[in-house]
Amino acid sequence: MTFRFEILHRSTKSRARVGRIHTSHGIIDTPNFVAVGTNGTIKGLDNEMVDAIGLQLMFCNTYHLLLQPGTDVVKRAGGLHRFINRKMPIITDSGGFQVFSLAYGSVADELKSRGSKKNEGHVLKINEEGVLFRSYRDGSKVLLTPESSIAAQKAFGADIIIPFDELPPYHIDAGKLRSSLERTHRWEKRSLDEHLKNPEGQAMYAVVHGGIDSELRKQSCNFLSNLPFDGYAIGGSVGKNKGEMSAMLQEAVPRLPEEKPTHLLGIGDLDSLEALVPLGIDTFDSSYPTRAARHGMLLTRLGNLKIGKAEYANNFQPIEQDCICSTCQNFSLAYLHHLFKAHELTAYALATVHNLTFMVEMMKRTRQAIADNQI
Amino acid sequence: MTFRFEILHRSTKSRARVGRIHTSHGIIDTPNFVAVGTNGTIKGLDNEMVDAIGLQLMFCNTYHLLLQPGTDVVKRAGGLHRFINRKMPIITDSGGFQVFSLAYGSVADELKSRGSKKNEGHVLKINEEGVLFRSYRDGSKVLLTPESSIAAQKAFGADIIIPFDELPPYHIDAGKLRSSLERTHRWEKRSLDEHLKNPEGQAMYAVVHGGIDSELRKQSCNFLSNLPFDGYAIGGSVGKNKGEMSAMLQEAVPRLPEEKPTHLLGIGDLDSLEALVPLGIDTFDSSYPTRAARHGMLLTRLGNLKIGKAEYANNFQPIEQDCICSTCQNFSLAYLHHLFKAHELTAYALATVHNLTFMVEMMKRTRQAIADNQI
Repeated sequence: MTFRFEILHRSTKSRARVGRIHTSHGIIDTPNFVAVGTNGTIKGLDNEMVDAIGLQLMFCNTYHLLLQPGTDVVKRAGGLHRFINRKMPIITDSGGFQVFSLAYGSVADELKSRGSKKNEGHVLKINEEGVLFRSYRDGSKVLLTPESSIAAQKAFGADIIIPFDELPPYHIDAGKLRSSLERTHRWEKRSLDEHLKNPEGQAMYAVVHGGIDSELRKQSCNFLSNLPFDGYAIGGSVGKNKGEMSAMLQEAVPRLPEEKPTHLLGIGDLDSLEALVPLGIDTFDSSYPTRAARHGMLLTRLGNLKIGKAEYANNFQPIEQDCICSTCQNFSLAYLHHLFKAHELTAYALATVHNLTFMVEMMKRTRQAIADNQI
Repeated sequence: MTFRFEILHRSTKSRARVGRIHTSHGIIDTPNFVAVGTNGTIKGLDNEMVDAIGLQLMFCNTYHLLLQPGTDVVKRAGGLHRFINRKMPIITDSGGFQVFSLAYGSVADELKSRGSKKNEGHVLKINEEGVLFRSYRDGSKVLLTPESSIAAQKAFGADIIIPFDELPPYHIDAGKLRSSLERTHRWEKRSLDEHLKNPEGQAMYAVVHGGIDSELRKQSCNFLSNLPFDGYAIGGSVGKNKGEMSAMLQEAVPRLPEEKPTHLLGIGDLDSLEALVPLGIDTFDSSYPTRAARHGMLLTRLGNLKIGKAEYANNFQPIEQDCICSTCQNFSLAYLHHLFKAHELTAYALATVHNLTFMVEMMKRTRQAIADNQI
């Protein structure tokens, strides 16, 4: 089955729409939340559990998988789906985000924290060809280029792949941002050309750049819209606060082809989802709900709940009375509080199951609200 | 349903027997392995998963549960089974083992490592009444006596409970070992009396002491056999090596009532199980298989497999071809190798599922072999 995006309903109240992305590994109902499984696993869960929760799209990081276990292993396993035993759709990024986070350091990390400080490597050279860096795993030199990123993503075989791009730091002067954008566009074109030699049922989403410079974002939207990408991801520095991000997105989204799916990279907190779904963004990836879970922050319809608080020690109710997740079906707040206090691994898994289920169910309600023209 | 032990078959080849322990939470087929879930969870798994694996008896530690979440919380939850959502049988110990490990330190730890170095508390006083110690959690003083241990174990409501005993260090002179044994016997009698005021369907196993002093072990077997315990656990210092342990057990086990179940405390490695089942021991608790799993040591019928070895990076077979566990059904050695290399929490859970299933299946085969008079 080839990739296809179908819009089922357009809200009369906003640019929000209900849709369906068809892939060879099944459907992604949109708008939807995309959980991050950097190394090919949602931390603490196995992929059978993740399928059971109904998470329709999982985000894996090419940078991490390239270094460990490496492209060859995944290829020999028969692709990422088979390697990690995931039956539903996967999206991979290009590796660019992590490599440039190494090069440009903490500003990008602050604005959009992904990857891990522990995994620091070392960038040796950046030029038109690509980026040469040293692997944090074995010290070997790795050259990441549009062509090598796409080769890796072809070996992984995710349903949706991302062209190689540069992530400039947030604090950059206008001239350098423009040069970076122009190079990113050349790299994305090279990535697309490489991809189209052998599409193999994969879809490629462009990454719109331009930082928070309104003119450059416009240029980026225009340039990329004229290329035959299957969808559009919004990346780069999306602003230092929600106001900047929202202003940028309000300008950018309407400049992208309306009939193609739109993804926002690295943003998935609840406030942002509520604010940005009405702009017409279809998918959002973020490690927020899973990371929050491991820190004992549980998502509920009444707001976040910090399970470590003393008030939960004697509360024998589930996290949410009407939640369908296996954690709420089987375990109480008091037990979860106890497991967190005792630093038990089980705590992280049970909390993650709940938060992920919460996101899946919340997005179902969001789609219904759009269908009802309430969003 | 009251506690009952039924012997189904006695081997013609050894003292091994196949039996069934009936409890109000179901049957424990014997001989069997008992996994340790110190804080009310097998590390990395939830209790629904543990039930599904078919682990018939789980060992929880009174010392840990007493300090966190505390007796009141478990009582208010409706007992340990409900608190942790375990439907199958549970055994709790008296707390004595951990408290005396604090007092006497590393020798006992070396011989029979349980508990965690991180959780060190501080023993303030040991006398005929019991042990006064300081909680590592909140610094409060806690008095553990035969009566208070049994009160806690009544609140927890495990199917099998253990009288309060002293764990003397391995290096102790004969006179002190004798005094310790006598006090332990007085404490066990007090524990039994306390228990029998209100048995509530719980069974109490005595703990046979005497270290590796043949005469004292004999005295302990005789003294405890004359009291109406429901079963017999062998505890204390069981020797500094397997030879000492085996010699001690060969003398001790035949001195215990043959119609009652026999448990060996804290021993459950594969070699010991093979050597000791023929002596007529019915149940064995150990954290070995679960701890080994978290260290990447996977149990197989062909011996232990260290998943971190490079040779598994490209092995797309399951851990064991014919294993029924969900890890082997769904994931390859290469994926597990990758998850361990990436220090993913999921690795520990998947390995634990396998090792626990291995133990359950291995004990099934052992029971069959006894039934066939091959053991």
